[in-house]
Amino acid sequence: MLKKVDAKVKLDKAAYKEQIDSLIIRLSEAQRKCKDAGIPTIILFEGWSASGKGSRIKSVIHSLDPRGFEVFTIKRPNEDERLRPYMWRFWQKLPAKGRIHVFDRSWYRVLMRGHEENEIKLADPVQDVLSFEKTLANSGVLIIKLFLHVSMKEQRRRLKRLADSPETAWRINEDDWIQNCRYDEALSSFSRMLEKTDHEAAPWIVVEANNRRFADVKIYTAMLSAMENALEKKLAANNKDSVKVTIPELTAPSALESVNLSRSLDREHYNQRLDAAQSEMERLHNEMYIHRLPAVAVFEGWDAGGKGGAIKRLVYPLDPRGYKVAPYSAPNDIEKSHNYLWRFWNNVPKAGHLTVFDRSWYGRVMVERVEGFCTPNDWKRAYSEINDFEKQLVDSGIILLKFWLHINQEEQLKRFEFRQNTPEKQWKITDEDWRNREKWDMYLEAVDEMLCRTSTEYAPWTVVEAVDKLYARVKVIETVRDSIELGMKSVRK
Amino acid sequence: MLKKVDAKVKLDKAAYKEQIDSLIIRLSEAQRKCKDAGIPTIILFEGWSASGKGSRIKSVIHSLDPRGFEVFTIKRPNEDERLRPYMWRFWQKLPAKGRIHVFDRSWYRVLMRGHEENEIKLADPVQDVLSFEKTLANSGVLIIKLFLHVSMKEQRRRLKRLADSPETAWRINEDDWIQNCRYDEALSSFSRMLEKTDHEAAPWIVVEANNRRFADVKIYTAMLSAMENALEKKLAANNKDSVKVTIPELTAPSALESVNLSRSLDREHYNQRLDAAQSEMERLHNEMYIHRLPAVAVFEGWDAGGKGGAIKRLVYPLDPRGYKVAPYSAPNDIEKSHNYLWRFWNNVPKAGHLTVFDRSWYGRVMVERVEGFCTPNDWKRAYSEINDFEKQLVDSGIILLKFWLHINQEEQLKRFEFRQNTPEKQWKITDEDWRNREKWDMYLEAVDEMLCRTSTEYAPWTVVEAVDKLYARVKVIETVRDSIELGMKSVRK
Repeated sequence: MLKKVDAKVKLDKAAYKEQIDSLIIRLSEAQRKCKDAGIPTIILFEGWSASGKGSRIKSVIHSLDPRGFEVFTIKRPNEDERLRPYMWRFWQKLPAKGRIHVFDRSWYRVLMRGHEENEIKLADPVQDVLSFEKTLANSGVLIIKLFLHVSMKEQRRRLKRLADSPETAWRINEDDWIQNCRYDEALSSFSRMLEKTDHEAAPWIVVEANNRRFADVKIYTAMLSAMENALEKKLAANNKDSVKVTIPELTAPSALESVNLSRSLDREHYNQRLDAAQSEMERLHNEMYIHRLPAVAVFEGWDAGGKGGAIKRLVYPLDPRGYKVAPYSAPNDIEKSHNYLWRFWNNVPKAGHLTVFDRSWYGRVMVERVEGFCTPNDWKRAYSEINDFEKQLVDSGIILLKFWLHINQEEQLKRFEFRQNTPEKQWKITDEDWRNREKWDMYLEAVDEMLCRTSTEYAPWTVVEAVDKLYARVKVIETVRDSIELGMKSVRK
Repeated sequence: MLKKVDAKVKLDKAAYKEQIDSLIIRLSEAQRKCKDAGIPTIILFEGWSASGKGSRIKSVIHSLDPRGFEVFTIKRPNEDERLRPYMWRFWQKLPAKGRIHVFDRSWYRVLMRGHEENEIKLADPVQDVLSFEKTLANSGVLIIKLFLHVSMKEQRRRLKRLADSPETAWRINEDDWIQNCRYDEALSSFSRMLEKTDHEAAPWIVVEANNRRFADVKIYTAMLSAMENALEKKLAANNKDSVKVTIPELTAPSALESVNLSRSLDREHYNQRLDAAQSEMERLHNEMYIHRLPAVAVFEGWDAGGKGGAIKRLVYPLDPRGYKVAPYSAPNDIEKSHNYLWRFWNNVPKAGHLTVFDRSWYGRVMVERVEGFCTPNDWKRAYSEINDFEKQLVDSGIILLKFWLHINQEEQLKRFEFRQNTPEKQWKITDEDWRNREKWDMYLEAVDEMLCRTSTEYAPWTVVEAVDKLYARVKVIETVRDSIELGMKSVRK
């Protein structure tokens, strides 16, 4: 994808002046329209060392309202970032609706400067980058990827000039010179990277940057056309004439039909097994901390299915400095202005810690689907987005557990009525709970499909028979214990 | 305040059991009420090494709904934190309305373990801690400060036990042993600290922690009474019968009356001076980055006073990786659930960076006062809260500039009408602008009082005569340049 730069590619002052002024006017109009349309925009600069990313960014933002954008410089990950999955720090820096975030380097660091990011575990960085960009693009984020390309001669000239001035010498290092000395090698490696990561949702734009005027005009033109496209696409989406997402039909039988809800445990065995599991969890949690093993436990289930009680018993023996219970209900303003996965990334644990998600990203394919809070396309796409997300967690070393607390309609009614009739429990039951109950069958269908489509080898669901609370609690904590024990074994080695 | 622990202070199992069960029930009820009342709660644990903070926290949270609290362990500041004012990392960790944040160690680190925080510049840590707590308490945050106190003998016993087990040995270090060897010295130093930082808004509770049962009962009782008090206070505040805040009467003459709005600059001198100042700013901004000097420029002024244009010229020559323009309008959901200063702390710059605040914390004493979005007590208290806040910024090494862009009513009308009549400017003018204009006199009074009460030696206001835009822009950029030049001089030394 990357050819040698044609040294003749340049623009004289007059031709530049003629084009740039009208581009600036049109761009600032497009920016305002994108803001009004609530389109989040990422403009990402990658390229050769000394290809002028800093000055091109400076030039680009002069066309933008200074109140509408923010610039992020991506350096080596800091300690906090190294303790989390690679993509975590980028999720933290995503633009809300209507905002523009400019990246000086980006998630492509792992592909271009992987040796500097070597403390990060990534099983398949190209795949992670692609699924990250697709997930964002599908939720309406405009991603403009610019690769600044300079010739070997020009790069050497610039590196020299930077090195010669005491004010700028600190900006370059050994690696930059190595890149220049092995220019052809780097050229073909960058070229391969661009090919592998060029896709419809976020295509690369190669900008010949030997000549600054030429580069500016090319960048401005690319931004303008990308923004105008995005606006059109947004309009089309509002008109509901967007292409329907199709996913393979389900062939597997219902995962829930065969669940044996009569499973139970007597109080005595409950006490014994709970005590044993809790003291093992206390020990394992300490070990997790020492060996920096992170874990995630996701709790989903019917209203009044017993999530709260199970979570309470699970975390009871643990040191509170090493775990967090993250409850999720309807998203707030800020959360709504981001991709639906965004608010969950915030609570992805650091190495050595446990996060318990009390409801989770599965809201997308349950409540959001059933209540129509997202489009069919949105929830159909979500299955693979969620699988990709979870794969990233697991690949980064996180032990991931997912529980579905299953009861039947009769049991739910009993529990609702008990709450209704017990003064100190009344706050736990709302009109919404009763309304949701009426949609039992629709939820059942959604849950069944969810269990089927998101039970992967690396992140299987555990369906918990939860009519008997004692049985359910013991099953949950013992499952967590066994998985962490297994995970610790490979870490201890 | 700290006496030697009486070894007899303990509780037997029966007495403990009798008290603790009813305390737990009452506490969980109080917690739910505090949540409903939207009270943010901080529970802070300080104390001797090995006094059992971890296990006391574990015990405390067993009485709480796991979905309602979060635990923060405060260690040495990381790099990101060291590059900002000391209090920054605590502002990042404050509870929203109705939430409980438990701190294992806290901002008292700087007073108790100052040698570990030595990269932090703090002119007057006791004062900073007090004003931090007062500001929070005044905005309704409940702060429960617990100091765990153990005897020398008990501490030694616990340190030994921790050191003897390979699972816990890593938790203690040299400093912990030194504390035990010089117990009496530490006792009187802790005691002085407790006295200096014990105040009505956030009193200390010393918990004798030799005996765990005794400690738990004391902690639970203290929490319960603090929560019940806070609920009562909240009710009283809702009933509007709270004590009126009084501040000294203004004696200074109006700062705005004498402003000479006829000041102007011709285009030729404007171009010359702007060019010169911009190229100096470019150089200085680089120097700031190298020497890690941070700066803040606050822009306030009448609607259509020219803030946007002045900001644009100021940042035009700067490297976008080293500055940020932070625009503020009405607070969103999340921001509303925190103290009014919270959202500004988010944008306090790292060392070496510049933040431009386009509107700021002064909204409290202008729009919030005039429109009645806060109570008279709130805005009256804000003057000293703001002065304290700015002192912390300046003490941490930040160059702080504050601009008031001043025009008169005639000029504003001219600009509003121009916007109204110019298609590509219409988006800049709203009904709200016209409404605000009708309250000109009320705003004038508020601005005058603000300029008078918050012009301090360390953070004076610069009133900018802004009827002539050219004059205003040059005055702004030259003032920033001169202040940074001055600041750099002392850094370069």
